[in-house]
Amino acid sequence: MQIGRLHIITDFWFQQRYSHAELASMAISGGADTIQFRQKHGSTRHLLEEAQKTADLCREAGIPLIVNDRIDVALAIEANGIHLGQEDFPLAVARRLLGKEVIIGATATTLGQARKAQDEGASYVGFGPVYATSSKANPAAVKGIDILSQVCHGVDIPVIAIAGIKTDRVSEVMSAGAHGVAVMTAVSLADDPVSAVRDLAERLRES
Amino acid sequence: MQIGRLHIITDFWFQQRYSHAELASMAISGGADTIQFRQKHGSTRHLLEEAQKTADLCREAGIPLIVNDRIDVALAIEANGIHLGQEDFPLAVARRLLGKEVIIGATATTLGQARKAQDEGASYVGFGPVYATSSKANPAAVKGIDILSQVCHGVDIPVIAIAGIKTDRVSEVMSAGAHGVAVMTAVSLADDPVSAVRDLAERLRES
Repeated sequence: MQIGRLHIITDFWFQQRYSHAELASMAISGGADTIQFRQKHGSTRHLLEEAQKTADLCREAGIPLIVNDRIDVALAIEANGIHLGQEDFPLAVARRLLGKEVIIGATATTLGQARKAQDEGASYVGFGPVYATSSKANPAAVKGIDILSQVCHGVDIPVIAIAGIKTDRVSEVMSAGAHGVAVMTAVSLADDPVSAVRDLAERLRES
Repeated sequence: MQIGRLHIITDFWFQQRYSHAELASMAISGGADTIQFRQKHGSTRHLLEEAQKTADLCREAGIPLIVNDRIDVALAIEANGIHLGQEDFPLAVARRLLGKEVIIGATATTLGQARKAQDEGASYVGFGPVYATSSKANPAAVKGIDILSQVCHGVDIPVIAIAGIKTDRVSEVMSAGAHGVAVMTAVSLADDPVSAVRDLAERLRES
């Protein structure tokens, strides 16, 4: 299975209005084509149950589910992929545990990290922060569109732009060469998450 | 590989004087025959690096390393076993991911949970809290020696007593039928962790 262009990252930290599965369900309704399940805290049992529900929804919709960081959870629910930050598992270890078929995404904040991820077998790179975001405690310095463009042209694997992506920024991000975008709080904290995803999906179709 | 009688649980929450590997090294010097690596917080990368160092020490000493909760870390470092709390992975999922040979320990706070763990394929049960402990935010009610004894005689797999185990309590715990004891802060917070382990090991030999 291939990653899509509109990745919605489920979130149970900045909001608890919606469960992961509820967010995924709304994201799918709005036109998301990839879901990333992300929870850095809480018990493994809770994580596993929520991830399983989310995986079932994604399977039904025929879109990939990527689990953030937790390889054990990804294995248990047979997720389509894993997304690894710089402080998560090394790519080589993840590839060994997950096998060749599983999508492995890697966060990069520089062109060097993006190239290294490609060399180590990443399926795609999540590059950012492109814009300022409030959803990281210690975000890396904002990179902007020019550096995003350098990264998109500096690696052969798809680049997913992340951080601070809003509807009116989609077109410049895509023009810079991104394969797609990943969005968390702009959806999870939106008054109407379905509409928020629908607007993003529409802009992506136009780009 | 079989579990031993003196399980020292490494800890990087109540203290940061010593790394996991340093604690494991001192525990081994003092006579520990099983190490449980336990870290519920922090990045996966840190966890993995620390667990790998600890595994190397245990391998050299010829004693098993059990990883708490994180199956992915256990797989990555080829740990001898995993220890699962009631809020961690279900036993059946862990057994499926880890295979038949890996030691799987399960925490039980009642005889019913201990029997269920045995039925689901646990290799041993960690039963407690036997005594009061300060190292859980929301500990279950203290069970005491009589209930420990019922559990030890109510299951066929080894029972490791946990919580509040100190040197002068080893003999009554072992008389109740326990296979061994698991100790965390009574070692990690001791003025002299090596001596603390040595004292426990001596009492176990006498029991």
